[in-house]
Amino acid sequence: MATAAATSSLHDDAIVIDGLIIAKWDRALFEDMRKGGLTAANCTVSVWENFEATVNNIVAVNALMRESSDLVRPVQTTRDITRAKEEGKTGIILGFQNAQAFEDRLGYVEIFKKLGVGITQLCYNTQNMVGTGCYERDGGLSDYGREVIGEMNRVGMMCDLSHVGAKTSEEVIRESRQPVCYSHCLPTGLKEHPRNKSDEDLKFIADHGGFVGVTMFTPFLKAGVNATIEDYVEAIVYIMNIVGEDAIGIGTDFTQGQDEAFFEWLTHDKGYARRLTRFGEIINPKGIRTIGEFPNLTQALLDHGLSEPVVRKIMGENWVRTLRDVWGE
Amino acid sequence: MATAAATSSLHDDAIVIDGLIIAKWDRALFEDMRKGGLTAANCTVSVWENFEATVNNIVAVNALMRESSDLVRPVQTTRDITRAKEEGKTGIILGFQNAQAFEDRLGYVEIFKKLGVGITQLCYNTQNMVGTGCYERDGGLSDYGREVIGEMNRVGMMCDLSHVGAKTSEEVIRESRQPVCYSHCLPTGLKEHPRNKSDEDLKFIADHGGFVGVTMFTPFLKAGVNATIEDYVEAIVYIMNIVGEDAIGIGTDFTQGQDEAFFEWLTHDKGYARRLTRFGEIINPKGIRTIGEFPNLTQALLDHGLSEPVVRKIMGENWVRTLRDVWGE
Repeated sequence: MATAAATSSLHDDAIVIDGLIIAKWDRALFEDMRKGGLTAANCTVSVWENFEATVNNIVAVNALMRESSDLVRPVQTTRDITRAKEEGKTGIILGFQNAQAFEDRLGYVEIFKKLGVGITQLCYNTQNMVGTGCYERDGGLSDYGREVIGEMNRVGMMCDLSHVGAKTSEEVIRESRQPVCYSHCLPTGLKEHPRNKSDEDLKFIADHGGFVGVTMFTPFLKAGVNATIEDYVEAIVYIMNIVGEDAIGIGTDFTQGQDEAFFEWLTHDKGYARRLTRFGEIINPKGIRTIGEFPNLTQALLDHGLSEPVVRKIMGENWVRTLRDVWGE
Repeated sequence: MATAAATSSLHDDAIVIDGLIIAKWDRALFEDMRKGGLTAANCTVSVWENFEATVNNIVAVNALMRESSDLVRPVQTTRDITRAKEEGKTGIILGFQNAQAFEDRLGYVEIFKKLGVGITQLCYNTQNMVGTGCYERDGGLSDYGREVIGEMNRVGMMCDLSHVGAKTSEEVIRESRQPVCYSHCLPTGLKEHPRNKSDEDLKFIADHGGFVGVTMFTPFLKAGVNATIEDYVEAIVYIMNIVGEDAIGIGTDFTQGQDEAFFEWLTHDKGYARRLTRFGEIINPKGIRTIGEFPNLTQALLDHGLSEPVVRKIMGENWVRTLRDVWGE
């Protein structure tokens, strides 16, 4: 009983950051974030959308956040994350899973930064003007891509490489003057998959000051749909043993509320062209099937024998420190 | 000599705001702003442009301001105006002369506020979705227009009515919960012109907490191209006698650096359709032909017999107070 109380208090007290959520944007999502005790989350507002459609997504999200300002607040700086914690709300970091929305205009990077976009994944599964995703042959970072990274560094927007190909990722890691991340990935050491990262990939990003958020998306876990929260903890510990306790965090890839049409859109190039993959059944590990069950993850990490300071780092402190390094505030 | 020294010191020391500049955006403009001792100016970034073209203008202006950050700084709050004064730079307020760039999306009002747009004129000469301009029959403020004003009030963006028709203007003045302005106008009491405002118009906006910036655009001045800075002072004093010394400021309408093609674009509906007006020769009043001659205006107001505190109000203090009322910071 004493332990349970201590745990509950640890989760309540901790800074809890989810580095990747691509759920349906609605009030129910925000309610579940509060139930799960999330301090902040990187929430996707662009995948295949062009500039204008992405701005329209942000317009819709702004309206939704305003209507639910009792539950959430926008995040532009790490100070906003602290404020969210103080207010008992969840801070919403807007994030892109593709640089597509920048189109051919470097200046759009700053435009989106001003609109609240703090993290952008450079490619989503396939090739764009910047580089190549992890589902096709990867020719590496383009010259325009180097300019995009320079601009992202200048305005303070984090580069995410989760769905980016290995060659492009390596070149981005070398190019960026600021820490970059795999916001949500799993290791090939536990399961071979185009989306998973090799031990060498993980060591390389960490050796260059980068950051790794660990996902629990069951299609990429060895146990698949039978996975439990312990399998998620196994993956977290596996990666931590490579990148160290200061470069690791959470990036669940929660998709709750999304329907079949959304996954069809997600798994086709450009949202409609050739099929890239087929997830099959989307079911999160037992024990953390929904965002509201987030406290179970803190408990599971403690149960695995990790110390409280390390659990606090994994659950959010590392993310906040890294974001502050990139955002500068 | 004592007077001249006092004057020079007054202009150097004063907050000097130009409520409307539509000059060519380049470093030469910024240099002339410094020469003229401008603390801040409302500079047009959209007239006939749609959403995307307007964002592209802002992208270009952001790059230009960055290259000239020794001369200018962006303004989003009145605190930024104070900072500009302290740093010896000119603060740039982005402004629209048409609500066209909002297109049919209320949410774009907030998007542009976040991108630095602090003032928007609701119509430019002709009818749009919001209301009607001053060059055609005016059916008044539309229902969508009321929603646009509500959104501008909510996010803190000032409504400008200079080129708006009389009926739409009156309805906007009644609708807005915040002060609105004619940022750059002249009185019909001195010359009849569709762009000039009647004594009743001027009294009405002032009685409802609004603000009037006075222009010197010679096609709207009695003396036309032969006007001098004394004619400009006459118009300022004429309007001040109606609206009072706390609701008046400067809004020159400087167009320096613009070419013939620009004026052709400006004087046709939508930038290309029917001709609305023909300015003829564009030449500013003798004594204030360029932005760099701004100190002469302070001098001319003093020479006219106005007290130093009143001159300070006219030259900028009133603008800053009104902008703070609207922006909330």
